[in-house]
Amino acid sequence: MNTPVYKPTCDLPPGFRASGVHAGIKADPAQYDMALLVSDVPDTSAAGMFTTNRIQAAPVKLDREKLQSGYARAVVTNSGNANACTGPQGMADAERMCALTAEGLDVEETDVLVCSTGSIGKPLVMDPIENGIPHLISQLTAAGGSEAAKGILTTDTRPKECSTEIIVDGKTVTLSGFCKGAGMIEPNMATMLAYVCTDAVIDPEPLKRALRVAVDASFNRISIDGDTSTNDTVLMFANGQAGHATLTSDHPDWRLFQTALNGLVFELAMKIVWDGEGMTKFIELRAEGCETDADADRAVRAVANSFLVKTGWAGTYPAWSRIVDVLGYCGINVNPDAITILYNDLPVLENSVPSAPNPDKLDPILASNRYTITFDAGTGGDGSAVLYTCDCTEEYVRINMF
Amino acid sequence: MNTPVYKPTCDLPPGFRASGVHAGIKADPAQYDMALLVSDVPDTSAAGMFTTNRIQAAPVKLDREKLQSGYARAVVTNSGNANACTGPQGMADAERMCALTAEGLDVEETDVLVCSTGSIGKPLVMDPIENGIPHLISQLTAAGGSEAAKGILTTDTRPKECSTEIIVDGKTVTLSGFCKGAGMIEPNMATMLAYVCTDAVIDPEPLKRALRVAVDASFNRISIDGDTSTNDTVLMFANGQAGHATLTSDHPDWRLFQTALNGLVFELAMKIVWDGEGMTKFIELRAEGCETDADADRAVRAVANSFLVKTGWAGTYPAWSRIVDVLGYCGINVNPDAITILYNDLPVLENSVPSAPNPDKLDPILASNRYTITFDAGTGGDGSAVLYTCDCTEEYVRINMF
Repeated sequence: MNTPVYKPTCDLPPGFRASGVHAGIKADPAQYDMALLVSDVPDTSAAGMFTTNRIQAAPVKLDREKLQSGYARAVVTNSGNANACTGPQGMADAERMCALTAEGLDVEETDVLVCSTGSIGKPLVMDPIENGIPHLISQLTAAGGSEAAKGILTTDTRPKECSTEIIVDGKTVTLSGFCKGAGMIEPNMATMLAYVCTDAVIDPEPLKRALRVAVDASFNRISIDGDTSTNDTVLMFANGQAGHATLTSDHPDWRLFQTALNGLVFELAMKIVWDGEGMTKFIELRAEGCETDADADRAVRAVANSFLVKTGWAGTYPAWSRIVDVLGYCGINVNPDAITILYNDLPVLENSVPSAPNPDKLDPILASNRYTITFDAGTGGDGSAVLYTCDCTEEYVRINMF
Repeated sequence: MNTPVYKPTCDLPPGFRASGVHAGIKADPAQYDMALLVSDVPDTSAAGMFTTNRIQAAPVKLDREKLQSGYARAVVTNSGNANACTGPQGMADAERMCALTAEGLDVEETDVLVCSTGSIGKPLVMDPIENGIPHLISQLTAAGGSEAAKGILTTDTRPKECSTEIIVDGKTVTLSGFCKGAGMIEPNMATMLAYVCTDAVIDPEPLKRALRVAVDASFNRISIDGDTSTNDTVLMFANGQAGHATLTSDHPDWRLFQTALNGLVFELAMKIVWDGEGMTKFIELRAEGCETDADADRAVRAVANSFLVKTGWAGTYPAWSRIVDVLGYCGINVNPDAITILYNDLPVLENSVPSAPNPDKLDPILASNRYTITFDAGTGGDGSAVLYTCDCTEEYVRINMF
């Protein structure tokens, strides 16, 4: 079991329960709009990573403050309203969601976190939420991971879940999670939220470090539309029920745990790209030959967020010429005479000269729903980066017009 | 005549001739694909401004070099192919276009500039161009400004022309110009090109300064899609035929000349926004209350290039909430509790609290094809900026997919 295997369902670790319900925030009774995830263990280590947007939703501000302690054991979520740009009333509403949940669960209010996702700038309508919380608590089960995964969705077309197991000190450790987002970043409806839970025994500080490593290589490497949300949140809970020796970086299975966590969070992040608003193609974008990794990162983000490149991917336009254009204006050093671009392994531009590849080889790649584009900026440097992104279609425009 | 009046046609000043033809670069014989603009005066002052993209098309490199002299009297243009990413052959082709034009006009090759606009990464097909140049020369007339304006178009839906007159030292001075572009910036088909000619008497250095002032307040303040082309070029020619005292910054009419030029170039730039690919709404975006003008500039550009903001403008989505989101992530200092946003004069957000404006007032603005959005970042600073932009529709995606 040294290579973790990932299942596409959220099978909660022992000591966790979850639920999802339609509370009435959304008009359609078939759509869930609230979720609850609870650890039954009082001292559950918890860590979070949040949006870097300077405008932050009330729940983000509240959770960030609460996680200073390193411990939390529940998170209540509503979808349909982001509780952002809602002023002091928004903070009061977020606090009330935590208080009602804590009361119903009979836990400390400091142990309860809150997330919201949906439209910005409208006050929460609290009636359905206040009725929804006892409903969520009554529905909590150990098998409820998939129900909770439904409760957090907005423009997503499907739930996004993942689970894996590893052996630490001879004990089975489960990691499982779920997330939502149809843009990495969407201020209206598709804020990115992700929850990871494990029964691993791990203190708050190493948990936080492990989560950061996993998020940097996954959620921080995707882009749907380049807009960073006011609500992006990743939360992780570890309740210690697996009973192995406490995981630290000195533990012989530390690397295995980090690898399993990386893989789980990466799977969740890829599910967001594959459900990008209106997307029809998944693009793995690799930069090489940049002066620094920072330059390579800047280049892949600029390419992934170019209207022209993204719309070219949607059709059959050979977007490589637009990629060259972006490399020229994105502010990094490039060698204009030594740029090389590959589609999968097929060169389309070599040392800035078009390769005129055989259409029999290129056309099937352009028509496929997943391919890799690698570009070399020609500087001779070893700066590199990867970003996972998707095309921009007419459907993306339709989704976001109204 | 202290306030210049602008006409929507390119009425060439005395001593200029122009033409446009279908040479066969484009398949459709109804579409022009070449243009020629000539000053009949040997010592015509000339100035140019070019793309800042590090990847530059061959004609851009060539013209930049030639304009070191401060003089030029002709520019030959082809549309349908940008002659970019075409290597040494591309430079040889650009030089050949100048040589053939110079020979046909019986002028020095150093006096002839060249522009190309269209697809990147394909070599020019020279046969139609070599036949087109004598055809262009045979068609040259003093009334040919509008013909030339047609010869440079790509995805544009209409020609973009403008003329005005002022009186300097009792002499009539004409300024006229034409341009193309359906994105400020489009590496495939909609590169921005603009040409301005005048019979004013002015030396190369002041001409260059005046042009820079005019371009900074016009072409450098528009964005269709945020992609900076490899071919953007603005050229200006002054042939001195008006016969007034040489214009310098000490001349009493210098300010009038600069004002007239600013207005002409601004009119041309606005025509590009109004013909933005797939656009249905013209948006004037104003930033105030930023710490610096540079911050304000960064903010208006980030807002104008957000997929979510632009698609929201296309429909009836109240994009102000997405604007708040962009202000939070675009990297400038904002006061999260003091952001104010106006649609025309109607507040939609005041000190970060939604204003819930009367739909009877807001809806007609959202439904109109031109409105102003003003946002105040709330820092108390006096940094400000303006940008002219447009919405992003499904039609934009369709235009750029294939």
